[in-house]
Amino acid sequence: MERPRHQGMVKNTYMRWRLPLVCLLWEVAMIVLFGVFVRFSPEADAHWEEEKQKMNVTSDIENDFYFRYPSFQDVHVMLFVGFGFLMAFLKRYGFGATGFNFLLAAFGIQWALLMQGWFHSFKSGKILIGVENLINADFCVGSVCIAFGAILGKTSPIQILVMTLFQVTLFSVNEYILLNLLHVKDAGGSMTIHTFGAYFGLTVTRILYRPNLEQSKDKQGSVYHSDLFAMIGTLYLWLYWPSFNSAISEHGDAQHRAAINTYCSLAACVLTTVAFSSMLQKKGKLDMVHIQNATLAGGVAVGTSAEMMLTPYGSLIVGFISGIVSTVGYVYLTPFLESRLHIQDTCGIHNLHAMPGLIGGIVGAITAASATEDVYGKEGIIKAFDFTGPYQTRTPSVQGGFQAAGIVVSLLMAFAGGALVGAILKLPVWGDPAAENCFEDDVYWEVPEDEESDVYHMHNPDKPASP
Amino acid sequence: MERPRHQGMVKNTYMRWRLPLVCLLWEVAMIVLFGVFVRFSPEADAHWEEEKQKMNVTSDIENDFYFRYPSFQDVHVMLFVGFGFLMAFLKRYGFGATGFNFLLAAFGIQWALLMQGWFHSFKSGKILIGVENLINADFCVGSVCIAFGAILGKTSPIQILVMTLFQVTLFSVNEYILLNLLHVKDAGGSMTIHTFGAYFGLTVTRILYRPNLEQSKDKQGSVYHSDLFAMIGTLYLWLYWPSFNSAISEHGDAQHRAAINTYCSLAACVLTTVAFSSMLQKKGKLDMVHIQNATLAGGVAVGTSAEMMLTPYGSLIVGFISGIVSTVGYVYLTPFLESRLHIQDTCGIHNLHAMPGLIGGIVGAITAASATEDVYGKEGIIKAFDFTGPYQTRTPSVQGGFQAAGIVVSLLMAFAGGALVGAILKLPVWGDPAAENCFEDDVYWEVPEDEESDVYHMHNPDKPASP
Amino acid sequence: MERPRHQGMVKNTYMRWRLPLVCLLWEVAMIVLFGVFVRFSPEADAHWEEEKQKMNVTSDIENDFYFRYPSFQDVHVMLFVGFGFLMAFLKRYGFGATGFNFLLAAFGIQWALLMQGWFHSFKSGKILIGVENLINADFCVGSVCIAFGAILGKTSPIQILVMTLFQVTLFSVNEYILLNLLHVKDAGGSMTIHTFGAYFGLTVTRILYRPNLEQSKDKQGSVYHSDLFAMIGTLYLWLYWPSFNSAISEHGDAQHRAAINTYCSLAACVLTTVAFSSMLQKKGKLDMVHIQNATLAGGVAVGTSAEMMLTPYGSLIVGFISGIVSTVGYVYLTPFLESRLHIQDTCGIHNLHAMPGLIGGIVGAITAASATEDVYGKEGIIKAFDFTGPYQTRTPSVQGGFQAAGIVVSLLMAFAGGALVGAILKLPVWGDPAAENCFEDDVYWEVPEDEESDVYHMHNPDKPASP
Repeated sequence: MERPRHQGMVKNTYMRWRLPLVCLLWEVAMIVLFGVFVRFSPEADAHWEEEKQKMNVTSDIENDFYFRYPSFQDVHVMLFVGFGFLMAFLKRYGFGATGFNFLLAAFGIQWALLMQGWFHSFKSGKILIGVENLINADFCVGSVCIAFGAILGKTSPIQILVMTLFQVTLFSVNEYILLNLLHVKDAGGSMTIHTFGAYFGLTVTRILYRPNLEQSKDKQGSVYHSDLFAMIGTLYLWLYWPSFNSAISEHGDAQHRAAINTYCSLAACVLTTVAFSSMLQKKGKLDMVHIQNATLAGGVAVGTSAEMMLTPYGSLIVGFISGIVSTVGYVYLTPFLESRLHIQDTCGIHNLHAMPGLIGGIVGAITAASATEDVYGKEGIIKAFDFTGPYQTRTPSVQGGFQAAGIVVSLLMAFAGGALVGAILKLPVWGDPAAENCFEDDVYWEVPEDEESDVYHMHNPDKPASP
Repeated sequence: MERPRHQGMVKNTYMRWRLPLVCLLWEVAMIVLFGVFVRFSPEADAHWEEEKQKMNVTSDIENDFYFRYPSFQDVHVMLFVGFGFLMAFLKRYGFGATGFNFLLAAFGIQWALLMQGWFHSFKSGKILIGVENLINADFCVGSVCIAFGAILGKTSPIQILVMTLFQVTLFSVNEYILLNLLHVKDAGGSMTIHTFGAYFGLTVTRILYRPNLEQSKDKQGSVYHSDLFAMIGTLYLWLYWPSFNSAISEHGDAQHRAAINTYCSLAACVLTTVAFSSMLQKKGKLDMVHIQNATLAGGVAVGTSAEMMLTPYGSLIVGFISGIVSTVGYVYLTPFLESRLHIQDTCGIHNLHAMPGLIGGIVGAITAASATEDVYGKEGIIKAFDFTGPYQTRTPSVQGGFQAAGIVVSLLMAFAGGALVGAILKLPVWGDPAAENCFEDDVYWEVPEDEESDVYHMHNPDKPASP
Repeated sequence: MERPRHQGMVKNTYMRWRLPLVCLLWEVAMIVLFGVFVRFSPEADAHWEEEKQKMNVTSDIENDFYFRYPSFQDVHVMLFVGFGFLMAFLKRYGFGATGFNFLLAAFGIQWALLMQGWFHSFKSGKILIGVENLINADFCVGSVCIAFGAILGKTSPIQILVMTLFQVTLFSVNEYILLNLLHVKDAGGSMTIHTFGAYFGLTVTRILYRPNLEQSKDKQGSVYHSDLFAMIGTLYLWLYWPSFNSAISEHGDAQHRAAINTYCSLAACVLTTVAFSSMLQKKGKLDMVHIQNATLAGGVAVGTSAEMMLTPYGSLIVGFISGIVSTVGYVYLTPFLESRLHIQDTCGIHNLHAMPGLIGGIVGAITAASATEDVYGKEGIIKAFDFTGPYQTRTPSVQGGFQAAGIVVSLLMAFAGGALVGAILKLPVWGDPAAENCFEDDVYWEVPEDEESDVYHMHNPDKPASP
C-alpha cells in the first residue's frame, strides 16, 4: 500500500463505478430498512392531537420539538460546518474536507437513526423517531467526523464510507453498553463520542500507516486563507458547544446547567491555550493550529459532567487543564506518536478529542461519585442520575465506579473496532491515493485551474513558469 | 442590448444617480406605506397583557414568538448567508453575489411584508405583523434570490431591484391564489417559492438572452477558494432546510414532522448526488458544482409534503430521486437549455429549484390525495389539511387535485410574469453590463487592487505584466 | 512610542513570557473568584424540582432557558463570528482579527459574569448565574469588541487583554448607573454597549496616536477574498441583530416587538447605505467598506427603543437615517478625524457604533417620553418601563429625561475611562508593534509561507522575485 513511487506502481484511484455503486446500493438499503422499521414518534405523528388528550398535555409548546429543536440545529451546524471547515485548513484539501465530511455525515445519520433506533426507540416492531433521535444521530456521526480527522487526506471516499458504516454500528453498540447496561451518564459524549471516536480513528490510521508520507509533506500545511476558513469551523464548534453538551439533557435545569458549565469551561480553555501556544514556541508567537483546535478541548472535557453540578468554577478548572494538555499534546505528543508509534494523525485528534475525552470521562466519574443530596436535593439527585426502577438503590459512589467502567469499555471498543476496520480499509480495493498524492483534492475532485495554482507552478521546479 | 464589442458600442453602467434615486425613493415609499398600514400583531403589541387575559393564555411562552423565532432565524441565515455565499462561487463576482443578494433581500422583505400583509394579515385597515409575517417575507424573497441565480452576473443592481419589486408582487398574488382560493398546502413552498421563482427567473434570463456571452467565458468559472466560499452557502442552506420547511407549519406535530421529513430527504439526496456526479464524469471525479447545488434538491422536493405524513422512508425516496434529477440536469440539461433554448442560467436554478420544485408539487399532490383517516387520525386529517369552514367537506383526493392545480397556476404565473418583467428589464435604461464585462465585480464595485488581480493580469495578454 | 524607524529603535514585541503570564495568572484569578462567588441560579440548579413547586411552575418549558437560549446563541455567533470576521477585512491581519477577538471575548465574558453579577445577581453572598447572565456577559464584551475595532492592528495581545479588563469593569459601573440608578431602559444597548464602547475605543486610539502610521499604509487595505471573509461577519451581525436587541427584553410581547423593530430598521438601512455609497463616489461604484459596516447602523440605532412601541415605520425611519449618517461618516468624517483630531479608527467604529449609538439613545429618549396609555395600555406602560416600586409615580416624559441623562453619563464614562486606559496602554511595557509592522499578523503569529506572499514579494521592490 505504501510502495515508493520509483517502483512505478501507480495507484488506481478511479472512482467512476465503485463510488456510485456504494452510494446507490447503500441508499437503497436505507430506503428499504426505513420502509420496514422507521415511523414518526407520537410527538411528530398526525395522531398527536389524540395523544395530547391521552397524555393530558394542554399546549403544543410541551412538544419535545420546542425543548430541543434549537439545540439540534446548533449541533447540526457543528457537524456540517464546524467539522467540515475545521478540517479545511490544508492548502489543497478544502474540497475533500468539507465535501467528504458532508458525504459521510449524510450517510452516517441515516444509518445511525436505524442503529440507535433499534437499541433505544424500538416499540412494537417499529423505530419511532423524533427530534431527540435526530440529535443522537448527529452525535453518533460526530464520532465518525472525529475519526475522519486522523485519516484526513489519506483515504478514498469509499474508505470513508466503509469506515462510517462500521463505526456507526460499533458506536451504537458501545453507547448501548454504557447508557443501558452500565447506566452511565454521558450527555455531551466525552466517552461515547470523543474517547471512542478518537481512539477508533487513531487505531485505524495506525494500521493504515504510510511510511512514505513525507512525499506529500509540502501539502500538509496551510496557507493564509485556508487558516481563516478553518477558523470558521473552530468558532462555530466553540460557540455552539454549550448546545452540544445540553442537547439531550433532561428538560429544565439539567439543560440549563449543561449549557452554563460548557460556556465556562470553553472560556477558560482559550486562555490556557493562548498561554501555552506562546510559551512553547521559541519566538513566543501564537500558532494557528493550537488556536483552531486546543481551544475546543474544554468543550470535550466537560462532556460527561456538564449536566451534573460541576459548578461554574469546576468548569473553569476543567477548561484550564484541558487547554494546557491539548496544546502540549500538539507540540510534543503528535510528533512523538508519528515518529515512534507510526500514528499519522492529520488533524491532531489525539490532542483535541482523545486526551480531553479521557479527562471528560474521569471528571464525570469524580463528579458523579461526589454527588450529595445536599448539593442536588433529594429529588434532584434521583433525577440527575436517573436512580429509578432497577437503579433506585444505586449510590453516587457506585455510579462513579460505573462511570469509570464506561471509559474502559469505550477504549476497548475503540481499539478492537479500529483494528478491525483498519484491516478492512487496508484491502487494496478501495482506491486510496498514492503517498505523493495525499492531501490533494485533485485525486478525487475536479479542481478549477486557477490563479493560485499558476503561482504555485511558478515556484514548482518541475513545471515551466509559462505554459 | 447585446451589441458586439467591435461595433464600438459602450454600455453606460454609471450608477451614480440612478441607483441612489431608486433606493431612496423606494425606501421613502416603504416608510409612507408602513406608516399608513403596518402595526404590530396582538402578540407583539404592548396590549398583549390584556390580550392574554382575553384569550385565556396563562403563560408568555404561548406567544407565537417562542414557537417560531428559532426557525425564523434559521431561514434568515439561509436567505442572506446561504443564497449569498452559494452564488459567490464565481471567481470575480463575490461582491455582487453577496452584496446584491443582500440589497435585493433587504428591499424585498419590506415590500413582501406589505404585499403579503394586504392579502393575509389585513384587519380593520391595518396590516398586523408578527414573527410569522417575517418568515413569510423571507420566503417570498427566497423566490427572488432563486431567480437572481439565473441572471447572476449579467444585470445591474437597478435591474435586480426592479425585478424584486415585480416578482414580490406576483409572488404574493400567486401565493394568494394557491393558499386562499385553491386552499392548497405548501409549507415549504415547492410550488410558491421554488417552481414559481425558478421558472420566473428562467423566463427573465431567456428574454435577456446575450448571444455574445462567451466573451466573458473566462470569468464564468470558479477558483479554488471561491468554491469554498460557495460551500459555506451550500452547507447552511442544507442544514437549516428542515427549519425552512417547518417554519410556518401548524404548532406541534406538523412542525416536528416537517423537520424530520426534510432531514431525511436531504440526507438521501447527498448520496445520489455524489453517485451521479462521479458516474457522469469520464474520470469519475466529483464536480463541486453538483455537490454545491444538487445536494439541496432534496429540500426543495419535500417542500410541499414535508408537513404531511410523507413518512421518513417516503422522504428518502424523494431525496433519492431529486438528487439524481438535479445532477443529471447539471450535466446534460443546462448545456442544452443554453445552446438550444437560449436560456443562460448562471447558477443552474433549473436543476436546483425548477425540476425539484415540480417534483415537490407532484409529491405533495400525491401525498395529499392518498391521505387516510387511518394514517392521520380523525382530528389529524382535518388539522393537517385545514378541512374546516367552507372546506369541511373536501376529501383528500379532491385536495390532491387542487394541489396539482396549484402547480399549473404557479407555472403560468411564472411564465407570464417572467415575460413581462424580462421585457421591462430589456429597456436600455437600467445600466446593465456589456457582454465582455459580465461576471465581473469591477463594473459596479470598487475592487481592491490585490495580489490575485496582479497574477490575473500576468496571464492576461491584454495587459502588461508589470505596471 | 512612535519613534521613527530611522532612529533605529526596534520595538520589543517578544510575547513568550509576558503573554502566558497574563493569561495564566488572570485565569487563576477567575477560578478563585468563581469559586468564592459564582453558583447556579435556581433555574439551572439541581434543586429546580423543589423550586418549581415553590414557584407554582407546572412545566419545565417555563424555565427561562427556553425563553432566551436561542437568542443567546445568536448573540454568541455575533460576538465570535460576527465581530471576528467583520474585522478580518485587512489583507494580512485575519489571524489577529479573529484570534485576538476570540481571546479578548473568552476572557471578557468571565470577568463580565463577575462584575455584572456583583451588581445585578448578588444574593446572600453569591452570584447566581443563568442564561440571562450569559447574554449580558456577551453584551458587555460586545462593547470591548467595538473598541477593539478602533485599535485593530496597532496593539499587542497584552494591551488588548488589559483594555478588556478595564473596559468590562467600567462598562459594568456605567451599566449599573444607567439601569439601576437612573432606571433607564436600554435593551439593545445603544447607550451602554455602542455609545460607551465606541467613544471609549476612540479615546484610547486617540491617546495611542501613531504619527508614522502611513509606514504600514499598504497593509491597511483589503484584498478580494478578505473582503468576502468580512462579509461573513457583516451578514451574521446583520441577520442576528433582531436577537441581539430582543435577547433580554421582557418575556412575551416585548421580545417579539424588539425583534420586529430591529428587522425593519436594518432592512431600511441597507437601502440608504447603498444609495449613499454610490452617490458619494465619483464613479458611482459601491464601496465594500460601506456595505460591510454602514448596513449595520440600523441595528445600533434602534437598540434602546426596539422593545418600545417604536412601530415598524418608526423603525424604518431610524434605519433610513442611520444608514445615511454612517455612510457619510465613512466618506467624510473618518479622514477628518484622522488628519485633524489624530483619531486613527481602523474599522470606522465612529460611523458604525458611535454616531448610530447616539442616535439610538436619542430615539429611545423620545420614544419613551412620548409613550401614552393609549398606545401601550394601562398595564402595558407599567410593564414596558417597569414603573413599579420606587418608580411607580414616574411619568413617560420624566423617563425620557432620564434616558437622555443616560446618554450623557455613558459619554462621560467613555471619555474618562478611555483616557485612563489609553494612558495605561501607552506604557512601553506591553510589546506593541512598530509603526511599520502594524496591520501585520507576522508580529504575533506564526504565518504560513504561502503562495500569496510569494506573489506579494514579487511586486515588492525590496525583495528579490526568486529566492
